[in-house]
Amino acid sequence: MQFQLTDELIEKVEILIEEQDDKELKSLFKEYHYADIAEILDELNQDEAVYVIKLLDSETTSDVLMELDEDIREKVLRNLSAKEIAEEIEELDTDDAADMISELPEERQEEVISNIEDAEHKAEIKELLAYDEDTAGGLMAKELVKVYETWTVAGCMRRIRGQAKDVTRVHSIYVVDKEDKLIGRLSLKDLITAKSDQKIAEISNSNVDWVHVKDDVEDVAKIMQKYDLEAIPVVDENQTLLGRITIDDIVDVIREEADKDYQLAAGISQDVEADDSILELTKARLPWLVLGLFGGLGSVFIMKGFEHIMSTVPSLFFYTPLIAAMAGNVGVQSSAIIVQGLANDSVKGSLLNRLLKEIGLSLINGLALALLVILFGFIIGQDTVESVAIAVSMMSVIVVAALIGTFVPIILDKRGIDPAIATGPFITTSNDILGIYLFFVLAGLIIGF
Amino acid sequence: MQFQLTDELIEKVEILIEEQDDKELKSLFKEYHYADIAEILDELNQDEAVYVIKLLDSETTSDVLMELDEDIREKVLRNLSAKEIAEEIEELDTDDAADMISELPEERQEEVISNIEDAEHKAEIKELLAYDEDTAGGLMAKELVKVYETWTVAGCMRRIRGQAKDVTRVHSIYVVDKEDKLIGRLSLKDLITAKSDQKIAEISNSNVDWVHVKDDVEDVAKIMQKYDLEAIPVVDENQTLLGRITIDDIVDVIREEADKDYQLAAGISQDVEADDSILELTKARLPWLVLGLFGGLGSVFIMKGFEHIMSTVPSLFFYTPLIAAMAGNVGVQSSAIIVQGLANDSVKGSLLNRLLKEIGLSLINGLALALLVILFGFIIGQDTVESVAIAVSMMSVIVVAALIGTFVPIILDKRGIDPAIATGPFITTSNDILGIYLFFVLAGLIIGF
Repeated sequence: MQFQLTDELIEKVEILIEEQDDKELKSLFKEYHYADIAEILDELNQDEAVYVIKLLDSETTSDVLMELDEDIREKVLRNLSAKEIAEEIEELDTDDAADMISELPEERQEEVISNIEDAEHKAEIKELLAYDEDTAGGLMAKELVKVYETWTVAGCMRRIRGQAKDVTRVHSIYVVDKEDKLIGRLSLKDLITAKSDQKIAEISNSNVDWVHVKDDVEDVAKIMQKYDLEAIPVVDENQTLLGRITIDDIVDVIREEADKDYQLAAGISQDVEADDSILELTKARLPWLVLGLFGGLGSVFIMKGFEHIMSTVPSLFFYTPLIAAMAGNVGVQSSAIIVQGLANDSVKGSLLNRLLKEIGLSLINGLALALLVILFGFIIGQDTVESVAIAVSMMSVIVVAALIGTFVPIILDKRGIDPAIATGPFITTSNDILGIYLFFVLAGLIIGF
Repeated sequence: MQFQLTDELIEKVEILIEEQDDKELKSLFKEYHYADIAEILDELNQDEAVYVIKLLDSETTSDVLMELDEDIREKVLRNLSAKEIAEEIEELDTDDAADMISELPEERQEEVISNIEDAEHKAEIKELLAYDEDTAGGLMAKELVKVYETWTVAGCMRRIRGQAKDVTRVHSIYVVDKEDKLIGRLSLKDLITAKSDQKIAEISNSNVDWVHVKDDVEDVAKIMQKYDLEAIPVVDENQTLLGRITIDDIVDVIREEADKDYQLAAGISQDVEADDSILELTKARLPWLVLGLFGGLGSVFIMKGFEHIMSTVPSLFFYTPLIAAMAGNVGVQSSAIIVQGLANDSVKGSLLNRLLKEIGLSLINGLALALLVILFGFIIGQDTVESVAIAVSMMSVIVVAALIGTFVPIILDKRGIDPAIATGPFITTSNDILGIYLFFVLAGLIIGF
C-alpha cells in the first residue's frame, strides 16, 4: 500500500506529459496522496511540473505546492499568474496560505492578495502576514472550532457542524466568553459523551493551555512537547482567542531546529541540502573553512616563534597535530553537551558547580590520555622528560579546552545569542590556536627552553 | 498562567515534606499539571520524591512517573512494592505501561504483571512487551476506537461513547470488517456531521494509511511526518488491526534520533546529558578521545619519518595543524550533509554524479583557500616554491577529505550501518592522518626532497 517513488513511475509521467495525455495523467494522479504527487514533481523539470500543476484541480495542487521543495515551488509559482496563485490560496488553510504568499516577491504579494475572492479568507491571511514568522502568530492558523460558554451541548453540536467543515482536523473545541476571550476547552469526545441539554460551561475544562501571539516558536514547541499537546490556542494580551497551532507544524519546527544545530556544529551555515547547487553549498561551507584557515595560519605564527627549539626538541613539533586534535575534540564534546542541554532546558544549578565538574571530568579524561602518551613515548624510546612535558602540557590543554567549550555557549546564551554558533569550527579553531600556544609554553617551562 | 520552576517553589515543597504536611502538599500539587509535578520531583532527592509519589493518587502519579527523568524514575520505582507499581500501571495507557515495565529488572517484571488486576489490560501489556522497542509494535498502544462497517452512525455513536472513555484522545475511528481487518477510517467530525441512519461503510474513507507491526520506528516517523498524520493504525500480516501510534510518541522518536546524531557528530556516545555523573560522561567521551589520540600518535609517526627535512623546509611542520584542521573540517562538513540527506531520504541520483559534484565543490573551496595561503606566504616573506607547494598539497588534501567524508557514510548506509557513526571524531581522525601524510608526500614532490 505504501507509495514507492520509482524511476519507472517518473518516466511514465514524463511520457504522458510529452504526449499531453491529460486524461491518463489525471487518472494516474487521482490515486496518489498530495505528498506523493509532490515527491514526483520534485523529480520533474520545471516545465513538466508546471504542466501538472495547471492540469490538476487547485483542491489537490494547493496541497501539492505546499509539499514541494522550496526551490521548486518558487519556480512553479513564477510560472503561474497572480489569479492562478490566488485560486490555490483559496484552497489552503490560512497558515499555509500566508506562508505561500510570504515566499513571493514583494510586488507579487499584493497582486495575489487582491485576487483572493473570499473576503474573510483574505482578511485572515493579511492578519497572519503581519506576524513575525518566528512567533506563535507566524505559525498559527485562523481555522478553529469555537463555542460560547452559554450554549447547550445540542446547540453546540448543531453549530460546530457548520464550523467544522472549514477545519481539517478538530483537536479541541475552544470555549470563549461573549468578548471572545478564551476561557476553556473541550474535546469532541467530551461533547459526544455529554447529555444534549447540558450547558457548555458545565462540561468544559477551564484548565486550558495557551500561548501568546508574540511567543517564540521554539518556546511554543517546548510547551507542546512538555504537555503532549496536539494543538494549542493562541491569544493576544487581552486573552482574546486569535488562532491555533497544530502539532504537525511544531514537528517541522523541531526538525528544522535540530537540523540547524547539527549543521552549525558541522561548520555549515544553515539551510543547505546535499542536492543543492555547488554555488549554494560553497556559500554555506567556505566561510567556516576560511575561519579554520585563519586559525591554522595563527598556529603557523605561533610555531614560527618557537623555531629556535626545532633542533633541540623536534618531537614537540611532531605532536602539534595531536594537541590540536585533542583541544578541538574536547572542546566540541563539551560545547555539544551544553548546547543540547540549553536547548532542552536541562542545564541547571550554579556556574561554580559546573566549573568544578568540568574541571574534574577533563582531569580524569586528560590523565588517562596523558598516561597513554607517556606509554607511547616509552615504547618509541623518547626522552622521558620530553614525554612527561608533552603529556602534562596536553592535559592542561584538555582542561582549558573543556572549560572554553563549556562556558562560551553558556555566556552566549545568557546574552541572548544562539549558543549553537559556538560549536564546531568556531570552538575547534579557537581551541587549536590556544592549545598549541599553551602546549609550547608549558612544555618549555618543564623542559626548560 | 505558565508554570515556572523556581527555587522558592522547590524549597516550599521540601519544607512541606519535612513537616509531613500532607494536606497542604496535596492541595499544592492539585493545581499542577503532571508534567510540572515531574519537573519538581526531578529536583528533589530520592526520599522526597518517593514521599510525594506515595502521597498522591495513582491517577496523577502514574503520569508523573512517566514524565520523570529515567534515572530518577528507576530510583523511585525501586522504592515501591510490586503491588504499588501495578496500581500505577493500571492507570497508564498500554504503551506507557509496557514501557514502564520493560525498564524494571527482569525478576520484578513478572511480579508486577501478576499484580495487575484488570485481566484485559494485563493481556494487552504482555502482548506489547513481546515486540522489539524499535518497531511499530514497541511504540503502539492498544487503546483505540474501532467500529464495524455494518453499523449505523447512530449505533456507532452509542457504542463509541463506551470505547472512548478508555482513549485519552480520539484521533481517528478505525473501521474494520467482521474479521477485525482494517478497511477504513473516519473522523469524529465525519461522524457528527453525518445523518444518524447512514451506514458506516457509506461515510468512511477506505484510503487509510497504516504501518506493519514490525516496521522500524524511524520509518513510521517518516510516514507520519510526510502525510501529516496525528495517529496511524498498526496491523499484522493479515491486515488485522492491532493498535495505533500517536504523534506525541513520534515527536519523542524524532528528538531522540536528532540528539543521537548530534552527539555522534560531536564525539559523544549517545544518551548523556550535561547533568549526568562525571563517570557516565567520561564513559561517553573518553573512547572517542582515545580514538583521536591514536590518530594524533599516528601523525607523530608520519612526521618523524620526515624529520630529515626539518632543517631544510621547517615551514612544512608549522603548517601541519592547519592541514589537519582543513582535512578535519572539510570531512565533517561533507559527512554531515550526507548523513542528514540520508536521514531525510533526500540523497538521490547516481554515485558518479555525486563524485563529480563533490570534486567540483572541494576544488572551488580548495582553490579559494590555496590562494589565501599563497597570499599569506607572500606577506610573511616565505619562499614562493614552498608557499605554492603548501597551497597545492593543501588543496589535494581538501579534495580527498571531501571524498572520504562523502563516501564513507554512503558506503556504511548501503551496508545497513548507521552512517552517523562516520561523522565527528571518526572522520576527523582518519582525515588528520591521511591529510598529513599526503601533505608531506605531495610537498616533497613539488619542492623535491
